[in-house]
Amino acid sequence: MQAKRRIKKLHHHKRRGEPGSTPGTLTVAADATKPRIHVFSYSGDTFQEHDLSGPSEVRPFLEMPGRITWVSVKGLGDEGLLRELGEIFQIHPLALEDVVHAPQRPKVDEYEQHRFVIARMVLLKSADDMHAEQISIFLGKNYVLTFQEDFVDCLEPVRNRLRKLGGLHRTHGADYLCYSILDAIVDNYFPVLESYGEFLEELEDQTVLKPTRRTLSAIHTAKRELLDLRRVIWPQRDTINSLIRDESPLVSPQVKVFLRDCHDHAVQIMDMVETYREITSGLHDVYLSSIGNRTNEIMRVLTIISTIFIPLTFIAGVYGMNFHTDASPYNMPELDWYWGYPLCLAVMFLIAIALLGFFHRKGWLFAGKDLPEPGMLHDLGLPSDAKKK
Amino acid sequence: MQAKRRIKKLHHHKRRGEPGSTPGTLTVAADATKPRIHVFSYSGDTFQEHDLSGPSEVRPFLEMPGRITWVSVKGLGDEGLLRELGEIFQIHPLALEDVVHAPQRPKVDEYEQHRFVIARMVLLKSADDMHAEQISIFLGKNYVLTFQEDFVDCLEPVRNRLRKLGGLHRTHGADYLCYSILDAIVDNYFPVLESYGEFLEELEDQTVLKPTRRTLSAIHTAKRELLDLRRVIWPQRDTINSLIRDESPLVSPQVKVFLRDCHDHAVQIMDMVETYREITSGLHDVYLSSIGNRTNEIMRVLTIISTIFIPLTFIAGVYGMNFHTDASPYNMPELDWYWGYPLCLAVMFLIAIALLGFFHRKGWLFAGKDLPEPGMLHDLGLPSDAKKK
Amino acid sequence: MQAKRRIKKLHHHKRRGEPGSTPGTLTVAADATKPRIHVFSYSGDTFQEHDLSGPSEVRPFLEMPGRITWVSVKGLGDEGLLRELGEIFQIHPLALEDVVHAPQRPKVDEYEQHRFVIARMVLLKSADDMHAEQISIFLGKNYVLTFQEDFVDCLEPVRNRLRKLGGLHRTHGADYLCYSILDAIVDNYFPVLESYGEFLEELEDQTVLKPTRRTLSAIHTAKRELLDLRRVIWPQRDTINSLIRDESPLVSPQVKVFLRDCHDHAVQIMDMVETYREITSGLHDVYLSSIGNRTNEIMRVLTIISTIFIPLTFIAGVYGMNFHTDASPYNMPELDWYWGYPLCLAVMFLIAIALLGFFHRKGWLFAGKDLPEPGMLHDLGLPSDAKKK
Amino acid sequence: MQAKRRIKKLHHHKRRGEPGSTPGTLTVAADATKPRIHVFSYSGDTFQEHDLSGPSEVRPFLEMPGRITWVSVKGLGDEGLLRELGEIFQIHPLALEDVVHAPQRPKVDEYEQHRFVIARMVLLKSADDMHAEQISIFLGKNYVLTFQEDFVDCLEPVRNRLRKLGGLHRTHGADYLCYSILDAIVDNYFPVLESYGEFLEELEDQTVLKPTRRTLSAIHTAKRELLDLRRVIWPQRDTINSLIRDESPLVSPQVKVFLRDCHDHAVQIMDMVETYREITSGLHDVYLSSIGNRTNEIMRVLTIISTIFIPLTFIAGVYGMNFHTDASPYNMPELDWYWGYPLCLAVMFLIAIALLGFFHRKGWLFAGKDLPEPGMLHDLGLPSDAKKK
Amino acid sequence: MQAKRRIKKLHHHKRRGEPGSTPGTLTVAADATKPRIHVFSYSGDTFQEHDLSGPSEVRPFLEMPGRITWVSVKGLGDEGLLRELGEIFQIHPLALEDVVHAPQRPKVDEYEQHRFVIARMVLLKSADDMHAEQISIFLGKNYVLTFQEDFVDCLEPVRNRLRKLGGLHRTHGADYLCYSILDAIVDNYFPVLESYGEFLEELEDQTVLKPTRRTLSAIHTAKRELLDLRRVIWPQRDTINSLIRDESPLVSPQVKVFLRDCHDHAVQIMDMVETYREITSGLHDVYLSSIGNRTNEIMRVLTIISTIFIPLTFIAGVYGMNFHTDASPYNMPELDWYWGYPLCLAVMFLIAIALLGFFHRKGWLFAGKDLPEPGMLHDLGLPSDAKKK
Repeated sequence: MQAKRRIKKLHHHKRRGEPGSTPGTLTVAADATKPRIHVFSYSGDTFQEHDLSGPSEVRPFLEMPGRITWVSVKGLGDEGLLRELGEIFQIHPLALEDVVHAPQRPKVDEYEQHRFVIARMVLLKSADDMHAEQISIFLGKNYVLTFQEDFVDCLEPVRNRLRKLGGLHRTHGADYLCYSILDAIVDNYFPVLESYGEFLEELEDQTVLKPTRRTLSAIHTAKRELLDLRRVIWPQRDTINSLIRDESPLVSPQVKVFLRDCHDHAVQIMDMVETYREITSGLHDVYLSSIGNRTNEIMRVLTIISTIFIPLTFIAGVYGMNFHTDASPYNMPELDWYWGYPLCLAVMFLIAIALLGFFHRKGWLFAGKDLPEPGMLHDLGLPSDAKKK
Repeated sequence: MQAKRRIKKLHHHKRRGEPGSTPGTLTVAADATKPRIHVFSYSGDTFQEHDLSGPSEVRPFLEMPGRITWVSVKGLGDEGLLRELGEIFQIHPLALEDVVHAPQRPKVDEYEQHRFVIARMVLLKSADDMHAEQISIFLGKNYVLTFQEDFVDCLEPVRNRLRKLGGLHRTHGADYLCYSILDAIVDNYFPVLESYGEFLEELEDQTVLKPTRRTLSAIHTAKRELLDLRRVIWPQRDTINSLIRDESPLVSPQVKVFLRDCHDHAVQIMDMVETYREITSGLHDVYLSSIGNRTNEIMRVLTIISTIFIPLTFIAGVYGMNFHTDASPYNMPELDWYWGYPLCLAVMFLIAIALLGFFHRKGWLFAGKDLPEPGMLHDLGLPSDAKKK
Repeated sequence: MQAKRRIKKLHHHKRRGEPGSTPGTLTVAADATKPRIHVFSYSGDTFQEHDLSGPSEVRPFLEMPGRITWVSVKGLGDEGLLRELGEIFQIHPLALEDVVHAPQRPKVDEYEQHRFVIARMVLLKSADDMHAEQISIFLGKNYVLTFQEDFVDCLEPVRNRLRKLGGLHRTHGADYLCYSILDAIVDNYFPVLESYGEFLEELEDQTVLKPTRRTLSAIHTAKRELLDLRRVIWPQRDTINSLIRDESPLVSPQVKVFLRDCHDHAVQIMDMVETYREITSGLHDVYLSSIGNRTNEIMRVLTIISTIFIPLTFIAGVYGMNFHTDASPYNMPELDWYWGYPLCLAVMFLIAIALLGFFHRKGWLFAGKDLPEPGMLHDLGLPSDAKKK
Repeated sequence: MQAKRRIKKLHHHKRRGEPGSTPGTLTVAADATKPRIHVFSYSGDTFQEHDLSGPSEVRPFLEMPGRITWVSVKGLGDEGLLRELGEIFQIHPLALEDVVHAPQRPKVDEYEQHRFVIARMVLLKSADDMHAEQISIFLGKNYVLTFQEDFVDCLEPVRNRLRKLGGLHRTHGADYLCYSILDAIVDNYFPVLESYGEFLEELEDQTVLKPTRRTLSAIHTAKRELLDLRRVIWPQRDTINSLIRDESPLVSPQVKVFLRDCHDHAVQIMDMVETYREITSGLHDVYLSSIGNRTNEIMRVLTIISTIFIPLTFIAGVYGMNFHTDASPYNMPELDWYWGYPLCLAVMFLIAIALLGFFHRKGWLFAGKDLPEPGMLHDLGLPSDAKKK
Repeated sequence: MQAKRRIKKLHHHKRRGEPGSTPGTLTVAADATKPRIHVFSYSGDTFQEHDLSGPSEVRPFLEMPGRITWVSVKGLGDEGLLRELGEIFQIHPLALEDVVHAPQRPKVDEYEQHRFVIARMVLLKSADDMHAEQISIFLGKNYVLTFQEDFVDCLEPVRNRLRKLGGLHRTHGADYLCYSILDAIVDNYFPVLESYGEFLEELEDQTVLKPTRRTLSAIHTAKRELLDLRRVIWPQRDTINSLIRDESPLVSPQVKVFLRDCHDHAVQIMDMVETYREITSGLHDVYLSSIGNRTNEIMRVLTIISTIFIPLTFIAGVYGMNFHTDASPYNMPELDWYWGYPLCLAVMFLIAIALLGFFHRKGWLFAGKDLPEPGMLHDLGLPSDAKKK
């Protein structure tokens, strides 16, 4: 089922070592993508971009003075390569473990040489496939090292801005590059959430107008997905906040202004998710009420039809009795009256009319017609200007 | 649908750059209003008011000693003009981005030259159109620069007070002007919320007395709108609070007393919204109970009618059986009795009476009559003075 | 409707200036009571009590050395008088605005000359009329100035203690008088809440035993009233707390001990309101369940009667068919049997007995009888001493 | 009703002075127990225990050097005696008021001479009578003064430990005695809560298996009782915490280690109450679902019987019509067929079988049989070891 | 019932002394396992492992210089032995009480000689038996002392790493060993929770597709179990946090990096439990809706069948009346018409068709068929890439 698949991408089946295994053990998944290393190296007026064949080729870039180097590793399927990079960049074994054992909660860990940032990208791969991927960022003095699980990402605009001459990247350090990556990740939540919002609106219409069991499943699934999204986004915001409050020279005050903007966006995303969560939670109440309404409607039809015909059938039953007229003049003399039958039909008709009138006064006859017109709140009388004060 | 339109104004379809675009990119909406610049310049005893043809005409006002200048820009549809203003007032590109990419969360950002305040106005444009607009305020030493999306606003009373000679504006600085604007924005929430409250009261009456599916939609929509209102008002309060706690000379202690009053009003507005939210949330429970009550009522009618006539119909059916009296003296001798038929009718009548008595004792016969009188709590016995202690 | 009237007194229709009006504007309500000024002046061994004809007569009292003066203004319907008092006591225009534009949230504002305390009294004017009134208190070095909306209040016991010779008032300063007023206000919540509690108990009984739509309205109204009460009481507690934490000489440490006691009472009141809120919130669930129970009961009656008679009516119907016995010996020979009719009745009787037995085993026959006995929890087996440990 | 009586003991009918009465007024209840004073006096190697006839006899014990004195007053029915004790121990009038006007919220108040601790004991007097009593403790340098409302308490084990030679009491001061009392009070919550837990388990079984209206009342009452318990236990924990954070020499660091243990127990009690609260709150949902299930079951029986017999009765009705065969060969020729009647019965039989088959496929025939076996989660497939990783 | 047994292991039946017993009393359970003492002693290049016959044999290990000693006590069934160990390691009586009176809340207590850590292990003993056991850890300068209730645990991997030469244990002190134990305990929650998650997914499917009363019980039980799990895991996280913030030399900064990682895992476990809790809580709503859906479906069948046949039966009843044609030409002339009977049948047929058409238009005829296909969200129109921006 698609709904389930989407959840698992966000939350479950974390790669992890056996409980009790030595800290720092790397449990590389059998189906993990083979890694490729790509390097961007730039300063104020130079720019280089290379595919590397091995980790050792990274060193010369790091040693070039005045250069900012972005080492981008895509794919985590080679333990040796990861360990070698770990040694070059002096990565703590536990940090390397967190890189491999994705997904981890977004966080910032402080190490002497660098900051270790874990973030989560959300991508819309295709129509109904919301895909989440972990990106691990090491921010050093003159380098940014990123690890991604897969080749698809949302960082292409950042790369393009690097390739263009000029731009703020050329005048800022590695911290600005790190901000650019985080900002691209955070901003990419907006289109994903907006299309989720459209899905919720459809679900809402369906719930009010024509609720089925499938709607119920969809509401429950949406609740869970939004819960998962929330668990990803909350720590992401804290991550950015930690970088803003970082007092080391790794993050400059100029870049903190930009991070503050990124933080604002993360808060807006949280607001959206919280709003969606409350809407979805309210949808369940609406569903329950809709079910109640349906039961009501079914009952009404049953009651109207039954209640009209049951007394009539009784009358017909009475005159179907076989009391012998010859035993007594009181035995069903109506059957011998001249107007007996028409009178009987007329009485039945009057009873039916009376009951219909009763139901009409109760408002049960045409109660089902109130929804389909558009201006939903129109005749509830929204406040007019005249009432302003 | 109107309900949806009103929500979108509050929450959705934010203008925003492509994810990953360079920070500071201004994505001016195609349908944005062309800007007009208006300047108020005043000191203790002078007052000038001008429409400007271009940003550059602002400079002389700023340089007049002892003058407070309010530069009011309405409409955001000209990127060049905005950038030029940005240069004149030394606005950070990210701040300018927030001005254009409305709506943003209300906030205060500190910059060296000025404070950057984002607030949200709520206006009742017409009877059923609650309209929200962002206002961006830059508070400098001797100027206030405001950006609005549209020409309609709630600041006319502030402008009129400026035009009148005398008044507190003449003796206070730019910070008091900034307070005046915020106060007018906050106070304008009251009439809007009061008319919303009247709408909720109508909705409440409808929910108790005559709930339909449209009521259900209206409750759900109201929940969402109040959620949106809340998301706007919370950060607005924090915004005012930030200004009160601002320790720079831009906000003087005298004005902080006024801001504290404005903060009190913002808290009152939050209280109102929270109360409305709880009322609306309770309405859903009431709706569900009303539906249950209706089902009950329908069931009761069905049960009374069915239960009375089903046994009677059975009796009629018995005497409609064709057992041949001539086969045996035990075969339906009742049919030959002298008083057979009247006795049969009498038995039926007694059964009906007995059942009606049973239903009466259960209180099912007149249960629907308990609502329409006025004094709702009257006979529940509200506490009397005698019980006071 | 009474319920609504009571709410409005607590919450709505706040007097307030037009949005955007000059801060400090006094919008005196057309129906506001004309003010009367009353003065109590006392020291260790003297006591004076006067009705004043104008604000200017206050001054001599304030200047008497060693005297504590309580200036009590009842009624807010004279702007000139209020402004004159404002000048005498150096009241900030915003504070004066808050005095007039009642109801405000309870709060303490610090000014140089005095503390400005807003509190809310709750009174039981008559049997079913819970009345709330704002009292504004200015606590100066040697005076207390109070403003009330109306003549009715709960401060008579304080005045009587002042009139009596001796007592703690004579040995403490103005701060103790201010405490006395606050304490009388807070303590007066107890009888009001207790009578509200009795109302809730009645409502609870009604909900379990005989829920009607009026009960539903009453529950919803009670929810809202308790919400309003809560919004009044929370800031009231904070108000007292602010006075305790006040470090100016206006509030002496001796009086803080008393205020701490008053704070305890405010917390107890909050506890009561919170308890009432949870009870009321639970009542809605009980109501819903009661409705469900009623539906169940109605269904049960319908099902028992229908299910017994429908098969019997079918049998009667079968033997009412007109198959001609003379066409074939297989056409309804039962009708010619000697014991045909008695056998048929016997079969019907047995079917009815069997179905009654089935319903009895399901426990549907006498299920409605379980409530009216007293010891509700008796046979649920409350824990006995033997189980103690 | 028992349920109500139990609540009142926990929460209502607080003794309290008239609103507005002088602070320190003692409103002794008319039915309050006459007080008895009991004294324990001990040092490292001495122990004395006396009943006193009057407060004045306390003084000599307090003046004995090296002695710890526990003055235990049971019963609060003598204002004079209480005031005399108040003078001897220099008790603030407000503290004495709190002693008498029980129940108060548990708290610690600091006075110069002593700490004033209010705690609440919970006792299981008999099978279904949970009894709460206030104990007021004054902890001085060399004495502990306790006031109880009644003679029953849970402190007998403490008294017995005092009477035994040796034990930690002999080597610690008055603070350890105070801890002992608090610890006995806190620990006594465990058996009470455990028996409450057993009551909840019974209630739970009843709710799932055979819910009645009485169950509904019991759930609602349990909710309220647990709410009351919570309001007692929360401040009790804070009380102990305040003593731990007390920096005066009245509470020694050695005793703080013990108080920390006592605090742990209070937290465990809170955990239990919170768990019970969530269980009880969930019970309401279960009740609602059980009601829904019952309605379902009743409906199912009605539907099965009705739906089978209604078509059959119709067929019987058709062949009970009196169309005259002699008017036309098309008028009910079936009545004259040789196999007419048997065929008719056969058709009815087949229709009944078909409908039963339809209901069987829907799973409506034997749906009520799924509960009574024990291993509730057995066939839901709890995870096996094999799935561990 | 299994469900209950599992809960009790997590929560109830705590061993505890009588209320009021002397602090430090050890209430050893009658069925407690007899203790066995096992010692691991190692330094950089040595390793020893011994079973001890008595506590006194521990001393020599503790006195070996440069050695780290892990004294592991399994089983708590011998008070004398525990007291002897208490003396050797200078354990406070209250700490020893907490060791024996399991389960206690996880916590860290600081003592002069050591840190006292209480943690809770969760084990999957067999398929459906989630087992919880308390482990008490004393972390001293050169030793770790652990007490377990039973022989089964999840620490075997730690022991194996100790036995292997090399590894981080050999270069770090006792604090690293303590971390290893805590890490193994925390990591063991993952497989347990994952199998719990699988159980919840099955429960979810059952709730949507085929809810029974047993499902209701299972949901309620799961809620309670997750509540218990949460109460265990929250303090466990705080425990680790306390160790990280510990400023004594007992926990070195190097080990704190590892503890931070362990803390991250504890937070992830909390996230999982919270997610499970919200899912389970949502399941109840789904259950209620499913019940409502079922009632709907049953009602629909009843209504369709009844509503079609009731009017038909009425018509048949009419023509079963015995009005005598010979009394009047108006008495049921239809019975004598040539096409009377076929016409009557035709009218009945047309009425049935019309009613079926009515039900079809209402969508009541095939409403039950919407669930079983897989792609649950497919036709709700999940957002497509085209809408991305």
